[in-house]
Amino acid sequence: MTSASYVVAGMVCANCVTWITEELAQLPGVTAVSIDLPTDTVTVTSDHLLDIADIRRAVEEAGYTLVSS
Amino acid sequence: MTSASYVVAGMVCANCVTWITEELAQLPGVTAVSIDLPTDTVTVTSDHLLDIADIRRAVEEAGYTLVSS
Repeated sequence: MTSASYVVAGMVCANCVTWITEELAQLPGVTAVSIDLPTDTVTVTSDHLLDIADIRRAVEEAGYTLVSS
Repeated sequence: MTSASYVVAGMVCANCVTWITEELAQLPGVTAVSIDLPTDTVTVTSDHLLDIADIRRAVEEAGYTLVSS
């Protein structure tokens, strides 16, 4: 099990949290998604290390922007 | 040209406005979408009267709930 945190721009409200969580949870191996709005931080727990390109794609699919990892 | 207003539940922030506007704007005939967050009101302007089922589907596609028209 591994966790990684990412900075995502544009998250404002609980709906933003829901949309991003839904997209990231669909990635194979993801077991948990935790989002801290005040720090723009998204933490993804997974059973293997995820490809940053997949994280970026999921975040953008939700309509937001991955700033850094 | 016709305008109709609907009450949509769950809209909180500017991103919510964007997601709903994007979905409604894809309906054939829609020329403008205006959203007033404080009153949960979505106003759709179109070149013909739209089917409420299409409005509902677009709102739900964005992840929100059409309460009334």
